[in-house]
Amino acid sequence: MTTFVLASASPARLGVLRAAGVDPVVRVSGVDEDALTASLGESASPEDVVVALARAKAEAVVNGLSTSGPDPAPIDTALNDAALIDAALIDAVVVGCDSMLSIGGDLQGKPHTVDVARRRWQTMAGTSGELLTGHSVVRVRHGQTTAVVGACHSTTVHFATPSEADLETYLASGEPLEVAGSFTLDGLGGWFVDRIEGDPSSVIGIGLPLVRRLLNEVGVSMSDVWSARQ
Amino acid sequence: MTTFVLASASPARLGVLRAAGVDPVVRVSGVDEDALTASLGESASPEDVVVALARAKAEAVVNGLSTSGPDPAPIDTALNDAALIDAALIDAVVVGCDSMLSIGGDLQGKPHTVDVARRRWQTMAGTSGELLTGHSVVRVRHGQTTAVVGACHSTTVHFATPSEADLETYLASGEPLEVAGSFTLDGLGGWFVDRIEGDPSSVIGIGLPLVRRLLNEVGVSMSDVWSARQ
Repeated sequence: MTTFVLASASPARLGVLRAAGVDPVVRVSGVDEDALTASLGESASPEDVVVALARAKAEAVVNGLSTSGPDPAPIDTALNDAALIDAALIDAVVVGCDSMLSIGGDLQGKPHTVDVARRRWQTMAGTSGELLTGHSVVRVRHGQTTAVVGACHSTTVHFATPSEADLETYLASGEPLEVAGSFTLDGLGGWFVDRIEGDPSSVIGIGLPLVRRLLNEVGVSMSDVWSARQ
Repeated sequence: MTTFVLASASPARLGVLRAAGVDPVVRVSGVDEDALTASLGESASPEDVVVALARAKAEAVVNGLSTSGPDPAPIDTALNDAALIDAALIDAVVVGCDSMLSIGGDLQGKPHTVDVARRRWQTMAGTSGELLTGHSVVRVRHGQTTAVVGACHSTTVHFATPSEADLETYLASGEPLEVAGSFTLDGLGGWFVDRIEGDPSSVIGIGLPLVRRLLNEVGVSMSDVWSARQ
């Protein structure tokens, strides 16, 4: 078996992976996203940025695996015990992730407040956005990095127009406040996404078909990572 | 509040609804789908069939609600107690569902065996299928049906080409054997769906944006059904 290491603290990504039969080791990278994005310069495309951020997160986690000491920000202690980390150093894939939603060319972060989320929805209702998902896969064998690959997937998301009352109830639920783009596909927000063109798992957080292709590129099949810890 | 009654035994549909904030009363219709489909005649389109089946299921459940006696096939006794049924008779929406997957014009049922599922995947790998989802919403007020509406949504599903080893592992998991089309989007099969064009919730089992539109047509908003039992 090959150990699957998820370089992300996102519960949505962990949920997608577990539903799809992979129970990963979770490690958080601590990468300074703003500094890295700035270092890429103005000429970097959004596609370049999400792939570079995904790679930086994966590589930071690889470095953390091979140094001693516990994860500085453990998600779940059962996912971070020493035996699992030792196994990961022998044969692992470390998967980094980054996503951004662009509407009318503007990148959408987390709204944080009801007022900001309401204004976002007033703009995005009845229109569409582009969700860019970057992934990087680092293969580790016997403590050494043997391959690094990455790629990007774009999904178009068409938003419905919620009634004023429904929008207020949705905002009051708190669900859209701490997610990029002010919506979730796999929660209450699912009623307000009319259709997508692309990969739905990438909208929730981790693009399964893209990660599968990258795993194949570094010589790992689904059979190598499925149910490793079930 | 308006009681949301799901006229389906599908755990996938129940899961989608609960994740989207609606905890429905579940009632099973017992409609003879083959007989009804035959009665529609050769000239009925697939769109006509899924909407007619969804309507027949919803109406059968409405009839069952207003007659005395327990549900003949209770899914979960907590979902079928007498007080809930009484509430449903005062103000409810009963939602019927039917789906079919067509690949190259052939309707795809459940494969049941590994051999059939393997042959299906050998045909569908690298191609696309059309998933048709029909929904019907019956509004019930004080024991009387006050409105019946229905519609259909079509989603295109593009299948990846799993390696022979991955396909065998997937088949051996049993997951694709009892689902129409031999795949699931929200399970192990998610690795093998490259992209869709349409509504992802309809592929899992119940099309949230279509149901929302039908609810609106019968005068019910999301705020009326969200969290009714939470």
